[in-house]
Amino acid sequence: MVVMIEVIDPWGSCLVEDYACVVRDFGLEQFRASAFPKPNRIMRRGVVFAGRDLQRIAECIKNKKPFYALTGIMPSSEKIHLGTRLVVDNLKYFQEHGAKTFILVADLEAAAARGVPVAEARKRALEFHIPAYLALGLDYRKTAFYFQSENTTVIKLAFEASQKITLAEFKAAYGSAEPGRIMSAVTQIGDILYPQAEKPLPGIIPVGIDQEPHIRLTRDYLNSIKSSKRFVQVSSIYHKFTPSLDGSLKMSKSKPESCIELPEDPKVACKKIQRALTGARDTLEEHKRLGAIIEKDMVFELLKQHLVEDDNELKEIHDEYKSGRMSAGEIKQIACEKMTAFLKDFDAKLEDSRSLVKDLQFVS
Amino acid sequence: MVVMIEVIDPWGSCLVEDYACVVRDFGLEQFRASAFPKPNRIMRRGVVFAGRDLQRIAECIKNKKPFYALTGIMPSSEKIHLGTRLVVDNLKYFQEHGAKTFILVADLEAAAARGVPVAEARKRALEFHIPAYLALGLDYRKTAFYFQSENTTVIKLAFEASQKITLAEFKAAYGSAEPGRIMSAVTQIGDILYPQAEKPLPGIIPVGIDQEPHIRLTRDYLNSIKSSKRFVQVSSIYHKFTPSLDGSLKMSKSKPESCIELPEDPKVACKKIQRALTGARDTLEEHKRLGAIIEKDMVFELLKQHLVEDDNELKEIHDEYKSGRMSAGEIKQIACEKMTAFLKDFDAKLEDSRSLVKDLQFVS
Repeated sequence: MVVMIEVIDPWGSCLVEDYACVVRDFGLEQFRASAFPKPNRIMRRGVVFAGRDLQRIAECIKNKKPFYALTGIMPSSEKIHLGTRLVVDNLKYFQEHGAKTFILVADLEAAAARGVPVAEARKRALEFHIPAYLALGLDYRKTAFYFQSENTTVIKLAFEASQKITLAEFKAAYGSAEPGRIMSAVTQIGDILYPQAEKPLPGIIPVGIDQEPHIRLTRDYLNSIKSSKRFVQVSSIYHKFTPSLDGSLKMSKSKPESCIELPEDPKVACKKIQRALTGARDTLEEHKRLGAIIEKDMVFELLKQHLVEDDNELKEIHDEYKSGRMSAGEIKQIACEKMTAFLKDFDAKLEDSRSLVKDLQFVS
Repeated sequence: MVVMIEVIDPWGSCLVEDYACVVRDFGLEQFRASAFPKPNRIMRRGVVFAGRDLQRIAECIKNKKPFYALTGIMPSSEKIHLGTRLVVDNLKYFQEHGAKTFILVADLEAAAARGVPVAEARKRALEFHIPAYLALGLDYRKTAFYFQSENTTVIKLAFEASQKITLAEFKAAYGSAEPGRIMSAVTQIGDILYPQAEKPLPGIIPVGIDQEPHIRLTRDYLNSIKSSKRFVQVSSIYHKFTPSLDGSLKMSKSKPESCIELPEDPKVACKKIQRALTGARDTLEEHKRLGAIIEKDMVFELLKQHLVEDDNELKEIHDEYKSGRMSAGEIKQIACEKMTAFLKDFDAKLEDSRSLVKDLQFVS
């Protein structure tokens, strides 16, 4: 599949289907896991595929120099889906390797781009999204949270940046330029630079590739004011999407039957896995002879991206399935068991994390 | 002069030259001084010429019901000019007639639309603009001040509003739609509605006619969400510009020789008045025979808009000058004397007001 697009829309459906093309056309650096110590599961497996100014962060880690990692929570809905976990995996990686870690609640963006009242976004974030991010493995003692709407430093940085950006640049980056989206995007510049408000500091923003326009806008802004030396150019790291179980590019709550939600009843999740697109052959005989087409198999992709930590275990499943010795039914069974364990673990950790929220310190 | 424009640009030079046309084309209400108790100097003299939903405010005054009046300070430069005083005159009028009074420092707008760093805008406002507004007659004990950048309620209202406004609507209201200007304009919606954040309250925004797009954007937004009944539609009141001393439409610091600045050395001001465009005839003989063309006379306009409080005194000068009994030299002498007294008084009050600033309570 080679479908390229000129503009990636971080608010809409995404058409990116050829990640090599994306790397080339957007001038990204290819990600090399060997450049980072103890790369995480998705780094080792090519799910993380690109970045910008990665070397600066690799050196911070190597030399134990301070840097930051930042991501945002969009509380526009009441659940998240499995794909969201990839951002947390990367954030966690940098947190464990010394990054000062920031998570912002994009309550202003939820209002401006999606029409969710700020108060409602706040409520959802406190009740669910923040506990969910903690449940996915972040250390709450090492993570600074804030709400966009309460962080006047972010607001000031955003408004200052807005004066340097033209409507034409915005349209080039985003395709459309509705006021609510401009407000959101410019506020993200404020977010991305917030950890540098006091003094310059290298920082990395882990995102899905659909968020590239925000990175580009921020980097272009920093290039345009670089004489000021107020900020270090920001680094970014991109992961592929967790595909929809029906084989389309990106898991999405708009297709619930092909989307694993968090939280979700394991029985429901297993039913979805049962119906997932696989790379198995039409008949069992043919499957045994030719083996599965792994690269079209959404169940193997689930195992690779999310459910199997151990590389040897994954390789074993890969080899068995690709050779035809393992059937689609069997790999689905494995996925169902591992998914059940994962979802139960998530539920338990979500409960624990909820009790932490009242003690969190929010920065501003 | 009949020059009409489709779009009034609140950030640029303004081409409005026919106020009757403006009233008609923008669907404004004509201002009737008789509808308000004890109308102020500029209300009585047709300098205040239009409004929107004025009746609602007149009734609040009449029935002693609560309402608010709000204006903004734009600290993009280090001085103001005499024309700015008209806004303060109207704000003062409503303050004296029971309005809860708000003055915001548009530090975010200064950053987004004019490239003034937020910290610099804050400094200028504290050192000069706030004391200057107080020196022009507002009661600091009855005025709530705030900085946009510190008022998270304003920010929330602004971002919520941004989602309801399209780029097309913005362009229709403003002509251009650069990101910094969108951010500024939407933030003004937050400002205008801020006094209603807790509960609906009638309010009036006194502005020069060049600020009409902000009023229109806010009113359109309120119309679009009116089912929510969260806000009372806002009222507005418009004054004409103080013209440039060379006869062009609007006094502006970009033409310093035709602009009375505040503060200003009275001698410098008098020199400017000496060179002002008048309606005097070419020769003294002709002047005595035909009298001055009052409506082209910038010196009489200064007296009318700013320097003579008493209507009888103004009428006397008018009649003398129009009949030709008073020469241009004589009216300039009167203006110079009155301007000198005004500027000295302003200086003294500015000093007094500066000592109040440290005790002001800022709301947010």
